[in-house]
Amino acid sequence: MEENLGLFFGLSFLTALIAFAFAFYLYLWVRKQKVGNQRIIEVSALIKKGADTFIRREYRILFLFALIVALILFVLMPKPIWQGDVGKNIAMALSYIAGTVLSAIAGKIGILVATLSNARTAESAEKGIKGAFLVGFRGGSVMGLLVVGCSLLGVASVLMLTGDTSIVLGFSFGASSLALFAKAGGGIFTKTADVAADLTGKVELGIPEDDPRNPAVIADNVGDNVGDVAGMGADLFDSNVAASASALVIASSLSGDLANISMVFCYSLLGLLSSVLGIATAKIGKNGSPTKALNSSTYVTTAIFLVLTTLATFLFPGFSWRIWGASSVGLLVGVIIGITTDYFTDDTKPIVKRVARASSSGPAFTILSGVSYGFVSALPAMVGIAISALVAYTLCDPLGPGYAMFGIAMAAVGMLSIVGMIISNDAYGPIVDNARGLAEMGGLGEETIRIADELDSAGNTVKAVTKGFSIGAAGLTVISLLGAFMSEVNDALAAMGKELLTGFDIMHPTVFFGTLIGAAVPAVFSALLILGVDRNAERMVKEIHRQFDTIPGLREGTGTPDYDKCIDIATKGALKELVPAGLFAILMTLVVGFVGGAEAIGGFLLGNIVSGLLLALFMSNSGGLWDNSKKYIEAGAEGGKGSAAHKAAVIGDTVGDPFKDTAGPSINTQITVVSLVSSLASSLFVALSIF
Amino acid sequence: MEENLGLFFGLSFLTALIAFAFAFYLYLWVRKQKVGNQRIIEVSALIKKGADTFIRREYRILFLFALIVALILFVLMPKPIWQGDVGKNIAMALSYIAGTVLSAIAGKIGILVATLSNARTAESAEKGIKGAFLVGFRGGSVMGLLVVGCSLLGVASVLMLTGDTSIVLGFSFGASSLALFAKAGGGIFTKTADVAADLTGKVELGIPEDDPRNPAVIADNVGDNVGDVAGMGADLFDSNVAASASALVIASSLSGDLANISMVFCYSLLGLLSSVLGIATAKIGKNGSPTKALNSSTYVTTAIFLVLTTLATFLFPGFSWRIWGASSVGLLVGVIIGITTDYFTDDTKPIVKRVARASSSGPAFTILSGVSYGFVSALPAMVGIAISALVAYTLCDPLGPGYAMFGIAMAAVGMLSIVGMIISNDAYGPIVDNARGLAEMGGLGEETIRIADELDSAGNTVKAVTKGFSIGAAGLTVISLLGAFMSEVNDALAAMGKELLTGFDIMHPTVFFGTLIGAAVPAVFSALLILGVDRNAERMVKEIHRQFDTIPGLREGTGTPDYDKCIDIATKGALKELVPAGLFAILMTLVVGFVGGAEAIGGFLLGNIVSGLLLALFMSNSGGLWDNSKKYIEAGAEGGKGSAAHKAAVIGDTVGDPFKDTAGPSINTQITVVSLVSSLASSLFVALSIF
Repeated sequence: MEENLGLFFGLSFLTALIAFAFAFYLYLWVRKQKVGNQRIIEVSALIKKGADTFIRREYRILFLFALIVALILFVLMPKPIWQGDVGKNIAMALSYIAGTVLSAIAGKIGILVATLSNARTAESAEKGIKGAFLVGFRGGSVMGLLVVGCSLLGVASVLMLTGDTSIVLGFSFGASSLALFAKAGGGIFTKTADVAADLTGKVELGIPEDDPRNPAVIADNVGDNVGDVAGMGADLFDSNVAASASALVIASSLSGDLANISMVFCYSLLGLLSSVLGIATAKIGKNGSPTKALNSSTYVTTAIFLVLTTLATFLFPGFSWRIWGASSVGLLVGVIIGITTDYFTDDTKPIVKRVARASSSGPAFTILSGVSYGFVSALPAMVGIAISALVAYTLCDPLGPGYAMFGIAMAAVGMLSIVGMIISNDAYGPIVDNARGLAEMGGLGEETIRIADELDSAGNTVKAVTKGFSIGAAGLTVISLLGAFMSEVNDALAAMGKELLTGFDIMHPTVFFGTLIGAAVPAVFSALLILGVDRNAERMVKEIHRQFDTIPGLREGTGTPDYDKCIDIATKGALKELVPAGLFAILMTLVVGFVGGAEAIGGFLLGNIVSGLLLALFMSNSGGLWDNSKKYIEAGAEGGKGSAAHKAAVIGDTVGDPFKDTAGPSINTQITVVSLVSSLASSLFVALSIF
Repeated sequence: MEENLGLFFGLSFLTALIAFAFAFYLYLWVRKQKVGNQRIIEVSALIKKGADTFIRREYRILFLFALIVALILFVLMPKPIWQGDVGKNIAMALSYIAGTVLSAIAGKIGILVATLSNARTAESAEKGIKGAFLVGFRGGSVMGLLVVGCSLLGVASVLMLTGDTSIVLGFSFGASSLALFAKAGGGIFTKTADVAADLTGKVELGIPEDDPRNPAVIADNVGDNVGDVAGMGADLFDSNVAASASALVIASSLSGDLANISMVFCYSLLGLLSSVLGIATAKIGKNGSPTKALNSSTYVTTAIFLVLTTLATFLFPGFSWRIWGASSVGLLVGVIIGITTDYFTDDTKPIVKRVARASSSGPAFTILSGVSYGFVSALPAMVGIAISALVAYTLCDPLGPGYAMFGIAMAAVGMLSIVGMIISNDAYGPIVDNARGLAEMGGLGEETIRIADELDSAGNTVKAVTKGFSIGAAGLTVISLLGAFMSEVNDALAAMGKELLTGFDIMHPTVFFGTLIGAAVPAVFSALLILGVDRNAERMVKEIHRQFDTIPGLREGTGTPDYDKCIDIATKGALKELVPAGLFAILMTLVVGFVGGAEAIGGFLLGNIVSGLLLALFMSNSGGLWDNSKKYIEAGAEGGKGSAAHKAAVIGDTVGDPFKDTAGPSINTQITVVSLVSSLASSLFVALSIF
């Protein structure tokens, strides 16, 4: 079987190269699209500059942070340097750095292409929806392909070079660290700018959303890129790597058969290949619906993946059909979660309409109904994850001890297999959102703005689906990370000659202790992020007021606002506000681990996963629901723009913004970070805990 | 030792009698206070009539419901009637009915005294705060004493008559069923009326809160009584009985020593005795602070309980100091949870001020900051519960197998020992709230209203403490219910000759499956209640509009509103909207149990407890925080009444109302109901589940 593993390493590299080559082709294609409007070129350059500023500062801090963590890893992991093998510690530290660097590169290039595509999408929209859609979509696809390509390349390289799956966890932790900065930091940035721009622009001055007089308008557009392109990319890079890493850790603990490791790589590379095909075939008719085009390319990718994995499982004798089943169930449940999420957030479905109707009784009812439906919307996804875990477990348990957990890990790999497609759809959103702003600022005319609006609205709808999907995938991934954690603990226990753990019993007091505390962590984590956005937005509002007071002619449109100052505030604030939340989550993990030991951490992870999933689903969905209710009213329902219902819906949307774009999606990353910290520190917990 | 158990049964009855006698004395004392203002007598009678209407209808439905459940219990439990001992099934059904009836009687009398006290408190306030405080407090104490007396009497009688602790679970389930109706139904009633009265009165018409022209004003006052007096009383009756029941079930599974059962009764009766002493000594100086008086009587009760249990543990040789330690830790942690809750909701502390300041940026910031601090506020309580469970376990584990879980149960008993005092403080709130309304409607003059306001504000502050306390107590209780569930499952497994469960391993797929679903249940349950309030308030607003449109002179104060119609809508709606939420929770338990068996239910209960605690704390605390922020602004901060900050704070308060008075406190009951359904149906799950 070892030859096969070599084969799959080779195929993984080859597929990553194909993805990179295709991404490069798409980049060239986007770049050669024409852009002529001077005003658009100017503004687009401002957005690019702002995004670069943020990314540069963020990466500078991250670089320092990564160096410190790498040093800690080098000294302590996998074993304290004075006990173990120095070479392994070096490998751990290096693979951690590789994880951060690969994710950073993917994010950087993704933003580069996104800020290139926005202007070109806007100008293409002058000639109709068909071309504009393609520019936006292909611009986003570059990010999708890069992320998954880097993930596959990285995981395969680390494993091939070190032959040790624990080191892959180090790589995964690197990806998570970057995701924490990119997603939570980007999320704070984007909502700071969005909220401040809306509060001063729409509410106080009564000027349109993308009016160039507003000093925060460029920061707002930058935010879309750093939050949704780089942030979401880093988040899914993180989930994807974590899913592979945990599957590999569990596979390596199974009784000697390398076919399982081969299977992880095989399925991952087939997923990337399916995404390449799905992206290549995505298109839209002259008057077609962009939402349908995005969704149908997702379904095409899913179908291709199922066909290819069926063939592969047939071809390679070591591949089990039961594991194929687990992976397929994971993927299908992912799609179903996406569809149910859509039900709660799509404005053609009843829930959005109900919240819009409630808004006509006042903002308190917008909030109450949105919160309620947000809570309800968590149920189908949680039941879906529960069922897919149960089915995967039941299918794979007969294969032997440990296989059940491997089945769950493969369900996560299956769910994340089409992540290249998902990221493409996701990155499409901010590009066309920017394009809409540029069309308005460049004065491209009503029809073009209408087309840009249609593209934008499709982005919002699809975003709900991809978000549900990514939360579901993270849910399954962290279950398998729990399995990986137990493997690591048992390695540590075996090395110390102690009795192995067989599980985590909830009747055991330290497990229960950990569960309660673990459940509180995502709540506090998201609260800290939301409060961070509030504080930061307050600072920016002050700055905007200062500019309107001191820059002559700004209100009349003859003065030039100091856009950079706003970008600067958003950047500094985001990085500053993110630190307490991230540290809080990591410190709580360490405290619980050193107090209650490995068993407390088992409970801690369970509590964290369960309440994290609940809150992430609640926040993402209620946020999307409020956003679309507002849009639904703006389209004319319940009295339309300017009505009492509209005012209430705007308040709902403002509440929902940090829910859905800052806190909700960051919880995923928080869960992964906490799981990986636990796995990496497992031998320390086992050796040094109080209880 | 059996003689001692007999002694403690006797002492329990004696203590219950003392409590009843003292309650009767207080009732007579309150009744002899003078009331002369004709308008107050009239309105107070209307409130009493409304409360009676609601209670009568609620009890009628409950009677039907209880009959059906009793029939099911009779047929199926503890064993299906065709397999087991018919006598036991009859005992189970009867003790279930006894649980509902005793709780109902306590609630009914509590409301009777509360509606008697409100008018008398208002008139006493004319003569100063000292007397008025006593009338309000003693009126509330009647409920407190009755609830705990009935609980002790009931549990002791059932155990003495049947000698079977499983049957006590049936009694506890009866108490829970009533609590579900009383708390959730009363919660929907009170917030329907409150929200509708505020929306039409304060917002649309600009008339004061308790203006008699508003057709919903009586319903609003009725709501305080049915929600906070009867509802909270039933809720704590339920927790108190459940804590004793689970402690008894676990104690009876311990190796033969009846001293443990004696200890449960001894501690319970000493708790009631401490409450009697605490209530008897509560008083306030001429210009004293009612908040301090309420809190210090809580501390006095706590101290007395600690002294008495120390003496008892010293006196009775079978009583273990370790268990005394567990119970003391439980009580102290309860007090600490109360204090931390106070920090997040008291308007002299920074958090309330911060939310008030955020309100000046608009309602979205009121909501965002309130939600965030609500999430943060859950952390100390959850850590407190986690630590007390861990400490109790660690203290008692050396006593032998099973003792660790008994320690946790006794920590819950300890935390709930002073519940008589807690309920007294809690019932004081709606009485003085009503008194304030009566003082306004009776035109008692500014100074009297000011005194009533001061009494009312103390009620709000203390309410936050008692709520934190009752959620904490419920948290520990349900942990011990989890222990009781495992005892029951093992009894069933032993009877079937199967291998016993040693715990619930979270790596086991059905446990994990149950955990995820269990965690989603409290979220959906509370969402259904909140949506119920929304729908019901909508109906009442419509009715109020109809009355203003059709009753001549209503706006001018010459016409008489049809108060009854509003009470009728609140009553019918509350009972109708409560059913789907209650059924949902019970059905999910049955589905998970029949799909995944006992192990899935173990996970289900864990997920339910953990997410239930988190959401209950979040909702209760953020609701209290918004309420007090509004009051803080009304007292003059951030521009005072009528400012933009005030408008935003009113929206926050409206959102918080169903959070803190409907959904939040009902989650406790939901958790208990689900736990008891699981324990009672455990043998069915073991015999019939799919996995």
